[in-house]
Amino acid sequence: MKIPPVKGTRDFYPAEMAVRNWIIDGWKKVSVRNGFEEYDGPIFEYLKMFQIKSGDEIVEQLFSLQDRGGRDLALRPEITPTLARMVNQRINSLPKPIKWFSVPRLFRAERPQKGRLREFFQWNIDIIGVDNVLADAEVIFTTVDYLREVGLTPNDIVVKISSRKMLSTVLQEIGVPQESLDTLYAVLDKKNKLSTEAFEKMLNDQLPSSDMANKVREFMELENIQQVMNKFGHWEAFDEYFELMDYLDNMGVGPYYMFDPGVVRGLAYYTGIVFEVHAIGGELRAICGGGRYDNLLRDFGGPPISATGMGMGDRVLEILLEEKGLLGEQVPKKQLDYFVTCIGDFSKEVWQIVEKLRSMGYSTNFSYKMGGPSKQLKDASAQKAKKCIIIGDEELEQNKITVKDMASGEQELVDYDEFWSRLKA
Amino acid sequence: MKIPPVKGTRDFYPAEMAVRNWIIDGWKKVSVRNGFEEYDGPIFEYLKMFQIKSGDEIVEQLFSLQDRGGRDLALRPEITPTLARMVNQRINSLPKPIKWFSVPRLFRAERPQKGRLREFFQWNIDIIGVDNVLADAEVIFTTVDYLREVGLTPNDIVVKISSRKMLSTVLQEIGVPQESLDTLYAVLDKKNKLSTEAFEKMLNDQLPSSDMANKVREFMELENIQQVMNKFGHWEAFDEYFELMDYLDNMGVGPYYMFDPGVVRGLAYYTGIVFEVHAIGGELRAICGGGRYDNLLRDFGGPPISATGMGMGDRVLEILLEEKGLLGEQVPKKQLDYFVTCIGDFSKEVWQIVEKLRSMGYSTNFSYKMGGPSKQLKDASAQKAKKCIIIGDEELEQNKITVKDMASGEQELVDYDEFWSRLKA
Repeated sequence: MKIPPVKGTRDFYPAEMAVRNWIIDGWKKVSVRNGFEEYDGPIFEYLKMFQIKSGDEIVEQLFSLQDRGGRDLALRPEITPTLARMVNQRINSLPKPIKWFSVPRLFRAERPQKGRLREFFQWNIDIIGVDNVLADAEVIFTTVDYLREVGLTPNDIVVKISSRKMLSTVLQEIGVPQESLDTLYAVLDKKNKLSTEAFEKMLNDQLPSSDMANKVREFMELENIQQVMNKFGHWEAFDEYFELMDYLDNMGVGPYYMFDPGVVRGLAYYTGIVFEVHAIGGELRAICGGGRYDNLLRDFGGPPISATGMGMGDRVLEILLEEKGLLGEQVPKKQLDYFVTCIGDFSKEVWQIVEKLRSMGYSTNFSYKMGGPSKQLKDASAQKAKKCIIIGDEELEQNKITVKDMASGEQELVDYDEFWSRLKA
Repeated sequence: MKIPPVKGTRDFYPAEMAVRNWIIDGWKKVSVRNGFEEYDGPIFEYLKMFQIKSGDEIVEQLFSLQDRGGRDLALRPEITPTLARMVNQRINSLPKPIKWFSVPRLFRAERPQKGRLREFFQWNIDIIGVDNVLADAEVIFTTVDYLREVGLTPNDIVVKISSRKMLSTVLQEIGVPQESLDTLYAVLDKKNKLSTEAFEKMLNDQLPSSDMANKVREFMELENIQQVMNKFGHWEAFDEYFELMDYLDNMGVGPYYMFDPGVVRGLAYYTGIVFEVHAIGGELRAICGGGRYDNLLRDFGGPPISATGMGMGDRVLEILLEEKGLLGEQVPKKQLDYFVTCIGDFSKEVWQIVEKLRSMGYSTNFSYKMGGPSKQLKDASAQKAKKCIIIGDEELEQNKITVKDMASGEQELVDYDEFWSRLKA
């Protein structure tokens, strides 16, 4: 009986697994050196937990299931609610600031499309307990630290940054009532995903006058903070953006970032700096996004503690790296360190060599069927062995082994003990 | 709003995450050096896929869900069906033998109990395409290779081995009809989980005569292969066990294994050597189990290709290692390599040091609030920093930095350039 995989999921054969491991290992390495500690939560949580942050709309994007008591559960579409739950559970005993990262496997019941699957991995970094913009700067630095580590330059990607404080000040200056802000954010966030006409229509539907809609649209076209000030004046709420620029310039991130009022992040829960990283000139979705969310822990029943973070999926990143030719050269190729061949039956001598090599950390295989030497060398070659060890009668008699370099084809007859002492050196 | 985690799941705070990573990294390391390649599949598959191998009983142990088209899916309770599907999909292009490992996250909708959770990790190794018992021996070797790597000795654990070929021969010699074997295996597998009376009753219910039941019970009490031969004669079907003993003895596994006819593995799908690893003298469930399953790929719509493998969950293993005191000393403790303190505001000088240390791979933090030096040293201490870098006015003037060893408390004033050249050395 042949059954296919579920659409929107991936099979990771060894070659695809090598790419996945290389991406995730890079995320982990960069997180650790930037002082973040790893955590994880369960794959499923109570369904209602995901509604707190993202409202009821999230429910139709969820894979939902039930426990044996009939309680509604859901596969996690993001890890931030779990993070909030876990931090709140131990809020008094955890030393602050909390700098945590995670690489959760996440699930969305959407129609699969380019860069968007039903099952994916996401790198998350969060700093909790620091209201200083320095923490936002460090989140952006860590994000860029990873992206440039894998070879992406300011010619490939750009960090687009805005400020929710600035945005709400400007919108109120334009005349948008405070209570309309949250729904307006969701509209503004769609600017780069809709045609100009569709966006204008949505904006006009949302706002009381077309004059107001025009002003909002003009703001959204501004290209730097100077233009914003020229048009709307200099407000105290702009300071967090100035501070951020200072920090990022000091951190060497200057060439990677720009101001972009079109970066809004749809969710109501952001409260300060927001950012997204985009590929330059491509048609891909954002590579990652994040920002400050100072009210979330309180919304999950905890104290009011500020927080800022970032999430990066594996799929868009992988497509971009592939397009830029950055995967092939960096992902480790399948290689076996040693293949041990042997004339005659499987013997204690063969096994002693296999086991000794393995115990020294070398990946080592041998042939299960002791066929002729040429058959075994073919096996070694199929398994991409770097070196082959050949033990025939001659070698056994002389207490030697033949070591064959599979790339060059060169063979060397080496004294048994010398072989091991060379390896140890 | 405070919402608890779902029962039977685990939150991995950094301390628990360190244990999980240490266990999984060990599994991966041992797999790779033994010549296995990593793969993985999706977290969910079509529900019916899990019924092929394990029948309808499995359904009530599954977390089931639906895709948007209303098709029945389930969270994977094991990865072997996915392995069979993936191998069959590429059966012609994959070089044989296939030596693959995986560390899937698995799910069972059971009542949580000691060593048994609803969500867990499982190490799986499989060799596909080798009918030689040498492959079974290598699976057992690799299992033991890991267990002794983490410090478990023959005083702690025992590999209990039996042979399905031997078992079916003996049962037929006793008079059990061939068609009753599969259901009888499930009963025999319960021997060590039931009271003597309950087991006897089940056996009597299952078999046509109490004489037959007595003979089966007697067989199940035998302690070595010699006793089996004395009682039932020497059959060709016993050969695979003799061969296995030879291989295991050659591989140095001798002190770890014994024959145990009580090891049956309930599932009908095993066809040859079967084994389980148990803690000696404990009340824990088996640490792991495995064996040969030569018909599975065919049952999943592929060609008849032989296979043998092993699965080890993380939870029972972790409890055992904890009981034996083997976790504390081996799991890496939280440690930060450097904490950079600074007098005055966050400065370019501080950041340059932070970034340089990070780029060299050292995990490095700094204080977000530039409080007094004692406050910052307290932060460094809370973050378990090994070393602290102190830059005050004096240091800046002299182009030096103070390096404080947090364990010994010793401080040293070092020339700035010398500090970096020392680190590089």
